[in-house]
Amino acid sequence: MPITPWEVEGDIDYNRLIEEFGTQSIDNHLFSRLKLPLPPPVKRGMCFSHRDLDKWLNAYDNKEKVSVVSGRGPSERMHIGHLTLYAIPKYFQDTYGCTVYIPVSDDEKFYIKEYLNVGDVERFADDNILDILAMGFDPEKTIVHKDFEHTKIYRYASQVAKKITYSTAKAVFGLKPENNIGWVFYPAMQAAHILYPQFIEGSHQTLVPIGIDQDPFMRLTRDIAERFGFQKPAAIHKKLAPGLEGPKMSSSGNNAIWLSDDEDAVASKVHKYAFSGGQPSIKEHREKGGNPDVDVSFLYLKYFFEEDDRKLAQIAQDYRDGSMLTGELKEYFIEKVNNYLKEHRRKREMVEKNIDEYMLRE
Amino acid sequence: MPITPWEVEGDIDYNRLIEEFGTQSIDNHLFSRLKLPLPPPVKRGMCFSHRDLDKWLNAYDNKEKVSVVSGRGPSERMHIGHLTLYAIPKYFQDTYGCTVYIPVSDDEKFYIKEYLNVGDVERFADDNILDILAMGFDPEKTIVHKDFEHTKIYRYASQVAKKITYSTAKAVFGLKPENNIGWVFYPAMQAAHILYPQFIEGSHQTLVPIGIDQDPFMRLTRDIAERFGFQKPAAIHKKLAPGLEGPKMSSSGNNAIWLSDDEDAVASKVHKYAFSGGQPSIKEHREKGGNPDVDVSFLYLKYFFEEDDRKLAQIAQDYRDGSMLTGELKEYFIEKVNNYLKEHRRKREMVEKNIDEYMLRE
Repeated sequence: MPITPWEVEGDIDYNRLIEEFGTQSIDNHLFSRLKLPLPPPVKRGMCFSHRDLDKWLNAYDNKEKVSVVSGRGPSERMHIGHLTLYAIPKYFQDTYGCTVYIPVSDDEKFYIKEYLNVGDVERFADDNILDILAMGFDPEKTIVHKDFEHTKIYRYASQVAKKITYSTAKAVFGLKPENNIGWVFYPAMQAAHILYPQFIEGSHQTLVPIGIDQDPFMRLTRDIAERFGFQKPAAIHKKLAPGLEGPKMSSSGNNAIWLSDDEDAVASKVHKYAFSGGQPSIKEHREKGGNPDVDVSFLYLKYFFEEDDRKLAQIAQDYRDGSMLTGELKEYFIEKVNNYLKEHRRKREMVEKNIDEYMLRE
Repeated sequence: MPITPWEVEGDIDYNRLIEEFGTQSIDNHLFSRLKLPLPPPVKRGMCFSHRDLDKWLNAYDNKEKVSVVSGRGPSERMHIGHLTLYAIPKYFQDTYGCTVYIPVSDDEKFYIKEYLNVGDVERFADDNILDILAMGFDPEKTIVHKDFEHTKIYRYASQVAKKITYSTAKAVFGLKPENNIGWVFYPAMQAAHILYPQFIEGSHQTLVPIGIDQDPFMRLTRDIAERFGFQKPAAIHKKLAPGLEGPKMSSSGNNAIWLSDDEDAVASKVHKYAFSGGQPSIKEHREKGGNPDVDVSFLYLKYFFEEDDRKLAQIAQDYRDGSMLTGELKEYFIEKVNNYLKEHRRKREMVEKNIDEYMLRE
């Protein structure tokens, strides 16, 4: 089961990952400490693992400074799978009032994707930033910076780079001799992103909500943090969001609902591609019932679009006992997505007008 | 004979280097094309090799844009050996009227010297910049930038980095697994320095005066240049300047006359440490004569401090036939150096007051 930040394949055994990566599962006690209200991905098990989240909460309880770092590698447009990630920093900002740093690693995607040029990643970066901010981040408490624009980050990345040998980077990230030297350097940049709040505001607890596949960056950064007199950054690990065509992972093309998809595109994609837990015929479905646990429409309701716990439980029950058909579940899901995206586009336009309030450009 | 930018050892056979590196010697025809007046290091054989200097001169003759790049890695104070290098870009600026770019690679020295921290390299950078500019560069035609300050260079370095695999960098620079990933990345930064005039001003002929030990950077950069639609940068290769204690290479401590040394320090160092081509006793010297070709005081007169060809020839003759003693040669050299350094310090103070006219800070 290869799992590096750049290579995720196959079904993932999350319990095994906790063991392999040496992280901790989010147990009931820790879960009960989180301030309410919890957003769907947090309250419904998408956040399954952490490093030192308890220490971050302790620091908050002790009225110490805390912050959140939640970056983005802009290699394409954003889809609904990404919403499940950024709901997490937004939750911490809304509920704990902390600053959220959003470093945008245009350089990473440029290094790694052979076909992307600088103009491409810069366009995706600007596009993605609007989508992330449209989720409702507070301009007073949100700092967005791009590596190709806020190049001052290089000075911090250099200080990190000096503490990472090629051997280490190779071992942690599975670097190959044919990888370019920007790619080799990039782990220093990412670690600098994670340590950035401490570089500029001094030592404090920082929390990084990330896909579990990004954890190698956390391990490396935590090792380095103490050598700068910083606190080890905490992490909260999210499961990978399912693609449309199956409960495996996010992907591209028809396997995703883009945040820019219009109502017809959403309806058509869900009807045509969304993996269903239903039975092959209505008759059989009425008899045997469907399986919401593998149904992508249901999973997206669960992990993001359906805030109401009782409504979600009702859908699960109705689908399981066959009283709700796949077509009905999909219609409900389509309506939810389209309502969300309509509002999302409205907020995105507002953000675009005020983008300078969020951006660190120097 | 290991010769990489970071490791120079032993006596150097420059003809063999021309063959090994695949560069061209500066023949009489090319030499005769250079506009007068020539400064000592150029007219007296210190510049022994080149790549495409003829093309650079052709471009100038055709009234095309030409430029010069002459960088500095600030790991220590500067000594008189460094003057022999920066005399070359100054010559081209004075005589050909072209812009001289002086990229200061504080990051390189930070990556490579374990004991240097960011503050150290930044201090050396600011110090070295004053010494270079005090040689008389024209503020209207000189652009100085430091990697930790003009971090916009990172965006260009990234574009270069994508075109250099780890394998290539390893082969060209002898990188080792225990080197840090900043060091691995640095060749992209250096190539970006060399291509910088073309990145910002469009494709044109650029000339890079460098120590022959830096040629691996040139080969790599020339290979990359065409992939950006740029012209291959030309190079003019300088022999290594001798250290005080022997005609081998530049070095540190008592083996160098620092530009900050006062008159007594210069006199004391030259008398005590400057390698002499004279005989063990005055009697023997009068009989057999000395050898100016290995005498460090003479070599520095030849390569930098004595502009007057007839005076230099006279000294060589008098020293060779024994009529000039080592002590007399040293006294003459000390006087020349101290006169130069006195004027240097005066110009350095003036430059310091107007430093913003030279610096690219954003």
